[in-house]
Amino acid sequence: MLSRRFEPGGEAGTRRPEELIVEEPLSIRLDDVQVSSTMRTPGHDFELAAGFLHSEGALAGTPITGIRYCGTGPAMESEFNVVTVDTGGRAPAPTPRLGSTTSSCGLCGAEAIAELTERLHVLGPHEPWDPALLLTLPDRLRVGQGLFDATGGVHGAAAVDRAGEVQVLREDIGRHNAVDKVVGRLLLDGRLPATDLALVVSGRGSFEMVQKAWAAGFTALVAVSAPSALAVATARRAGLTLIGFARSGAGNLYSPEQLA
Amino acid sequence: MLSRRFEPGGEAGTRRPEELIVEEPLSIRLDDVQVSSTMRTPGHDFELAAGFLHSEGALAGTPITGIRYCGTGPAMESEFNVVTVDTGGRAPAPTPRLGSTTSSCGLCGAEAIAELTERLHVLGPHEPWDPALLLTLPDRLRVGQGLFDATGGVHGAAAVDRAGEVQVLREDIGRHNAVDKVVGRLLLDGRLPATDLALVVSGRGSFEMVQKAWAAGFTALVAVSAPSALAVATARRAGLTLIGFARSGAGNLYSPEQLA
Repeated sequence: MLSRRFEPGGEAGTRRPEELIVEEPLSIRLDDVQVSSTMRTPGHDFELAAGFLHSEGALAGTPITGIRYCGTGPAMESEFNVVTVDTGGRAPAPTPRLGSTTSSCGLCGAEAIAELTERLHVLGPHEPWDPALLLTLPDRLRVGQGLFDATGGVHGAAAVDRAGEVQVLREDIGRHNAVDKVVGRLLLDGRLPATDLALVVSGRGSFEMVQKAWAAGFTALVAVSAPSALAVATARRAGLTLIGFARSGAGNLYSPEQLA
Repeated sequence: MLSRRFEPGGEAGTRRPEELIVEEPLSIRLDDVQVSSTMRTPGHDFELAAGFLHSEGALAGTPITGIRYCGTGPAMESEFNVVTVDTGGRAPAPTPRLGSTTSSCGLCGAEAIAELTERLHVLGPHEPWDPALLLTLPDRLRVGQGLFDATGGVHGAAAVDRAGEVQVLREDIGRHNAVDKVVGRLLLDGRLPATDLALVVSGRGSFEMVQKAWAAGFTALVAVSAPSALAVATARRAGLTLIGFARSGAGNLYSPEQLA
């Protein structure tokens, strides 16, 4: 696509071609029931759908029997914007997510944590992570971000093992989607819970990032940018190691609380 | 909150207190019907609810008769996590947003644009924006971001007039929320459509940012980071001036097409 580049003090700007990140809507269905829609970068859509449903607890441990796009006939563009995850009807009927109740005064942050604690176990005993290793993860993520190099417009997420090797890396215009794609790949490969993997994300450590990491059983989460107060409280509750502001080999450790 | 700071090559790290951005769930209701929930930074909640509903087209131009928190009794924390916007039942019954249909193969990007074009008019004739002025907007936004200074964890959005004066500036952990708060303030002040204002956002220029800018009648959108291909196509369809990668006084102009 053509754009016009303006430099400081420059007048007319110069016209040049440019790669832009692709963004398209995706509807996610569980056993043909619509659960959510998201604006995403096409690609790894099956992983995205599976990972999202896992993170939200919608699968509730039910095995996936198949994943498919909407259409079966001659391909039309929109057929690739709906993905259905099948469990043969064995997954519980989808319920609205966090905060969607209409009868009460809604959730506060503490209740949001309590809701997670009800469906997720506190992470079990595991080998502690070396902060020095965790602080190298953003660089390991960055070198794998080919889409970012081309477009500058995407978030990235990666699952990294205890030797520092990147096991799965995904990019997407939505930071949640990038994580869901990583989680989905691990789920489809039978590698969850991800007890011996750390999750690194290019953006902030928000509540939903901690929720996704916890639901997948990661034992460490490294965020390049800031965590929220609720995210830190949730990570401490989960027993998840949380590092934020991880840049240039430095960073802040927020959880577990006794080490922070 | 306490965290432990690790520097490159440093061993144990040093413990220190730190301000973290607050993140709490907010449920948004229209005439007592749940429409959406979002993780947001508390504050300006009425603006957020009003702006969100306006951006989504849920108000359909219906005047707001009142905005209130859930509870009326002794304040409990959760009472401030539900906001109801009242129109006396005159707004149309809320419908699920983009992509939530269950009968078809979902939307593709072109259809998402068409859906917007159906409910929003192409922006009318207006004085063209000077790119040199627009390129100063990120700095004007940045100096007003007090929460960012304190926490490093928030997005910002501002409405700026043709003299370069910031009219409304809001910060939130969610970039969509920051924009909704700006739009809500302008709506509640009777200042929409924002024909003579430009919107500047600290993050990317995604489809939904363009949607929100268009719905509020802004005639220019300036994003500090990258736009998506769909966002550019939408801005061109709307007649919205769009600049991306606006940093250090430089930037790329993507729309209107004849100037890009």
